[in-house]
Amino acid sequence: MDNNRPLILISNDDGYHYNGIQSLIKVARTMGDVFVVAPATHQSGMASAITFVNPVRSIPVAREDGFTAYLTTGTPADCVKLALSQLMADRQPDLVLAGINHGYNHGLNTLYSGTMACAFEALMHGVPAVAFSYGNYSTDADTSVCEPIVEHVVKRVLRDGLPQGVCLNVNIPNEEVFKGMKVTTGDMGRWINEWEHRVDPSGHDYYWLTGDFEMGDKGEGITDYYWLKRGYVTVTPCHIDQTDFAAMSRISEMLS
Amino acid sequence: MDNNRPLILISNDDGYHYNGIQSLIKVARTMGDVFVVAPATHQSGMASAITFVNPVRSIPVAREDGFTAYLTTGTPADCVKLALSQLMADRQPDLVLAGINHGYNHGLNTLYSGTMACAFEALMHGVPAVAFSYGNYSTDADTSVCEPIVEHVVKRVLRDGLPQGVCLNVNIPNEEVFKGMKVTTGDMGRWINEWEHRVDPSGHDYYWLTGDFEMGDKGEGITDYYWLKRGYVTVTPCHIDQTDFAAMSRISEMLS
Repeated sequence: MDNNRPLILISNDDGYHYNGIQSLIKVARTMGDVFVVAPATHQSGMASAITFVNPVRSIPVAREDGFTAYLTTGTPADCVKLALSQLMADRQPDLVLAGINHGYNHGLNTLYSGTMACAFEALMHGVPAVAFSYGNYSTDADTSVCEPIVEHVVKRVLRDGLPQGVCLNVNIPNEEVFKGMKVTTGDMGRWINEWEHRVDPSGHDYYWLTGDFEMGDKGEGITDYYWLKRGYVTVTPCHIDQTDFAAMSRISEMLS
Repeated sequence: MDNNRPLILISNDDGYHYNGIQSLIKVARTMGDVFVVAPATHQSGMASAITFVNPVRSIPVAREDGFTAYLTTGTPADCVKLALSQLMADRQPDLVLAGINHGYNHGLNTLYSGTMACAFEALMHGVPAVAFSYGNYSTDADTSVCEPIVEHVVKRVLRDGLPQGVCLNVNIPNEEVFKGMKVTTGDMGRWINEWEHRVDPSGHDYYWLTGDFEMGDKGEGITDYYWLKRGYVTVTPCHIDQTDFAAMSRISEMLS
């Protein structure tokens, strides 16, 4: 590793062998030294789950000039925790990148996202972070169309930094050409039709998680999902504090 | 089920056979009809993880006057989703209760907590929710000391409701007598010493997740962890929107 180049930690939730993370690695290597710690298996929808019932192992898979990669048996949050506290203990990264996720992480879905968990974990350790998600859900989606967006955002973040305690959630629509880029709020819509009920050959019920996302933006034009549906790349600044400060006095009165 | 009594959904992350959820059930049954949908196995630290790689099954374990209980093979978030969209499709609950968790969920740990995931899931479905956590980490902790607190908070929430989009994160210290109750912010401290490195009998590395929580409150006396350490019950109002509104204009300038 060259100490004069930025050091960039990359993780994801789809696992190391997806095109999305390979696109991130490709772009990041043009701008700095790259250290990958990614799940060995698919960890989509794992949110900020952490592993303490079982131990976590790391498997080195690449070590060459300016590029190191490990797989782990843990969750996305475990990967970033293990990287920052153990595998990169000698030198903390200047930036953490997560993704590119195969599928959106817009609005309230940041709560379910293993990709966003990587960025939140970085924030907790005081490292700036950007998560990228692409609106193509195929396991073999070609993510090269996202690479100029990644390059633009990462260059600016390396140049200017990010406000303390803030990470970026970047969503990229599944389009040939983007209409532009919008800084947005997260869409607080809701999931409906969440389960598909089936009956197995033995006559027992089971349920598949599925659903349709109902947009919260009622024409205000402020949320990520509103602009993604119109072909724009969206960037939502996020933080980890979930305290609702505005409700504190009302709750105090109610409980007294 | 009696349609004139409140209908209360209860879930947790430790699983149905822990004392914490049994305390919640006991108190809730004095105030309403109770419907339990809880994980069949221990799901601590699962955050808002959701299951879509495998189907989810539900197992009915109790059905008597005013009390119904199911176990599921899913995560805490799956349990609440399955309850609200399928198992309770005929009548939505008036309130969702989660816990009592065996162990605190203070401050930034709301992001890792399966108990809080139940409350967040309820919020997404527009149902008021309260999560309870107890500072005793034993699997066989006696949670009866928490029951008067649960009764007080649940009575007030059933009487007054909660602000739209807000749930409560109640933490109860491991004390014989409580000093009082405080409405607080979540402590945005940090975890240090997060991993214990060991070597297995074959000479291979593995890591156990552990750690010490370093308080963020530097004497301001505003956070949950600050007051828990002083013997107070804490109540933190929480929401699910993680957008950092204050950073939006700065990020717009940076990316333009």
